[in-house]
Amino acid sequence: MKFSINRAAFIKTLNIVQRAISSKTTIPSLTGLKIDVTESHIMLTGSNADISIQTTISGANPDYELTISSTGSVVLPARFFNDIVKKLPDTELIIEVGDNFQTEIKSGNSEFTINGLDANGYPHLPEIDSDNTIDLPAEIFREVIGQTVIAVSKQESRPILTGVHFTLEQQKLAAVATDSHRLSQRKVTLPADGDQAYNLVIPGDSLKELAYMLDGKKEQIQMNLSENQAMFNFGTTRFYSRLLEGVYPDTSRLIPESATTNIQFSAMDLLAAVERASLLSHESRNNVIKLTINPNDKVVTITGNSPDVGKVEEDLQPQEISGEELEISFNPDYLKEALRVFGKINVEVAFTSSLRPFTITPVDNDEDFIQLITPVRTF
Amino acid sequence: MKFSINRAAFIKTLNIVQRAISSKTTIPSLTGLKIDVTESHIMLTGSNADISIQTTISGANPDYELTISSTGSVVLPARFFNDIVKKLPDTELIIEVGDNFQTEIKSGNSEFTINGLDANGYPHLPEIDSDNTIDLPAEIFREVIGQTVIAVSKQESRPILTGVHFTLEQQKLAAVATDSHRLSQRKVTLPADGDQAYNLVIPGDSLKELAYMLDGKKEQIQMNLSENQAMFNFGTTRFYSRLLEGVYPDTSRLIPESATTNIQFSAMDLLAAVERASLLSHESRNNVIKLTINPNDKVVTITGNSPDVGKVEEDLQPQEISGEELEISFNPDYLKEALRVFGKINVEVAFTSSLRPFTITPVDNDEDFIQLITPVRTF
Repeated sequence: MKFSINRAAFIKTLNIVQRAISSKTTIPSLTGLKIDVTESHIMLTGSNADISIQTTISGANPDYELTISSTGSVVLPARFFNDIVKKLPDTELIIEVGDNFQTEIKSGNSEFTINGLDANGYPHLPEIDSDNTIDLPAEIFREVIGQTVIAVSKQESRPILTGVHFTLEQQKLAAVATDSHRLSQRKVTLPADGDQAYNLVIPGDSLKELAYMLDGKKEQIQMNLSENQAMFNFGTTRFYSRLLEGVYPDTSRLIPESATTNIQFSAMDLLAAVERASLLSHESRNNVIKLTINPNDKVVTITGNSPDVGKVEEDLQPQEISGEELEISFNPDYLKEALRVFGKINVEVAFTSSLRPFTITPVDNDEDFIQLITPVRTF
Repeated sequence: MKFSINRAAFIKTLNIVQRAISSKTTIPSLTGLKIDVTESHIMLTGSNADISIQTTISGANPDYELTISSTGSVVLPARFFNDIVKKLPDTELIIEVGDNFQTEIKSGNSEFTINGLDANGYPHLPEIDSDNTIDLPAEIFREVIGQTVIAVSKQESRPILTGVHFTLEQQKLAAVATDSHRLSQRKVTLPADGDQAYNLVIPGDSLKELAYMLDGKKEQIQMNLSENQAMFNFGTTRFYSRLLEGVYPDTSRLIPESATTNIQFSAMDLLAAVERASLLSHESRNNVIKLTINPNDKVVTITGNSPDVGKVEEDLQPQEISGEELEISFNPDYLKEALRVFGKINVEVAFTSSLRPFTITPVDNDEDFIQLITPVRTF
């Protein structure tokens, strides 16, 4: 196997695949980058236990100035190979595999020889049924991930809750995540036709990585499923994630259908006040802030307290306020993370009682997006 | 004590003092920020065991929109106070100390009450003899620090070597640092008149902090000395550092007076090649690279080697090369750090033998700047 390539273009592609490679894996060959060279293209593969990324560089793409002299495969130590390629002196890079997978990396006057591994020892990526394809607009799918992945559980005690539950039925995609203290749910109707029905749970960490890779992409991406993997196909890149096994709990009955106290705020203003109050709650053992809602006086007061450090109190002016008086305490970090997802819009916060979950929705909720937070009993 | 102040201007000043405050100190009051309010100004003080920073905000400075209602002093939890001030909603900030040093911090509708401490419990800063002042141009002093502080020892086994040794005699300032593997020395003639003679050792960490604070400053700064502290005065800020006690070793005889092999390089080109070679030496146990100098063929070869990972070899074209053939091995990190200090100039590297220290100097050495590195015996 031997090829020469434009170094700057190669680095860009390497950076994509590199994101799947962990130096902390227990499977030695997964610390490596797999390079496959055929007569027409190069394929780079990186993987860890959860995700795999595979990118193809076509010989027909002029950006890469690719010249393939001979075909073959090798696995190279990924972090190290990456460091070398980035520090090489010249615009051109030549890689050649010799006996025992000893690999020469040449650029300008610099010549590295590093110990590669037999690519036959590298794990196989799952076979994907390409007949079973769902088209997803990259922008919308990325938004759905961002809106729900904040609520996945960080605890491994119930593994299924560490993922986002996606269901697709009659072109309606629903995504929901909950760590049992809070819940985020988004529904969206996909533009494409189709009558497939799906039900799958994708690990939150995989989705964060996928969302990062979809940043700025406007095209359609294709999702394919195998028994225990999902594969997302965009451009020259394939992103594989394992699926979580098990039955996701029914969350539909958790969302209250009516409210007795409602307030509306600019999400940014409310976020700033919650951030201030949480400065103090973070210093106390039970990280809780309190909202006191008084619809008669049209005032919402937010308070945080730490016996060691001090206290904070702030009167907020809601844009709208209605219903019954209420005092409710909760973990401010859940509300902060929920509000950050909304950005610069106005939100409605709807309560039923001090002990029942409350919801946050966009005031103009044509997005069918809801976040729910369970309060903390403080008395 | 009560005052109101422009919040943005106050934050800038707070950030300066904050740099001296560590949350990891064993003296509880040093985790605090001391605020002293007199009728004409506010003084902020932060300190750790090694450095103290004190900044004065004058009531006459219109940027601060300062209104002093009553005088007094308090010590507030620094990190926490800083977080609060940064997150407050309004442009104005009001601070008022009440009973038992309970301190109210108000801005807009937000009102914090935090537990302060009696400023009488705060350590006193040293008395400095202001008759004994040395004027230093900030830019030059910062350059001298940057050129020498890289070579201070990180080992506490010989504490005196963790500092930079400064001597001043007949307006000639000399700075030298060595960790016994390498040495950096810079001499500079100060423009100002004076016949003081000084000999002091300032901890490297203090100097890094001072250099950071002098970044971009063009004015003269004043240095004052007490028995065990140096104080640097610039603008409205005073920077105190403890001095290291003990006698600094005589380093003058370490610098070789002649050389048998000389090479000249662009510092940046040589740095890039050493960085590549060190990728491999870092993977091996004895982090060493080798230079092979062949003046007859006008070639310098750099090699790095790791039995586990591989090897690298690169031929360099020096701008000048003369003297005897030589093979020399050394820690590439020392050479990298030395070369980075030179920036984009040409340097001369001068050798006497494989086992004797070699020197790096600017080709145009009107700066009187020399770096020295001890080789490693590999045979």
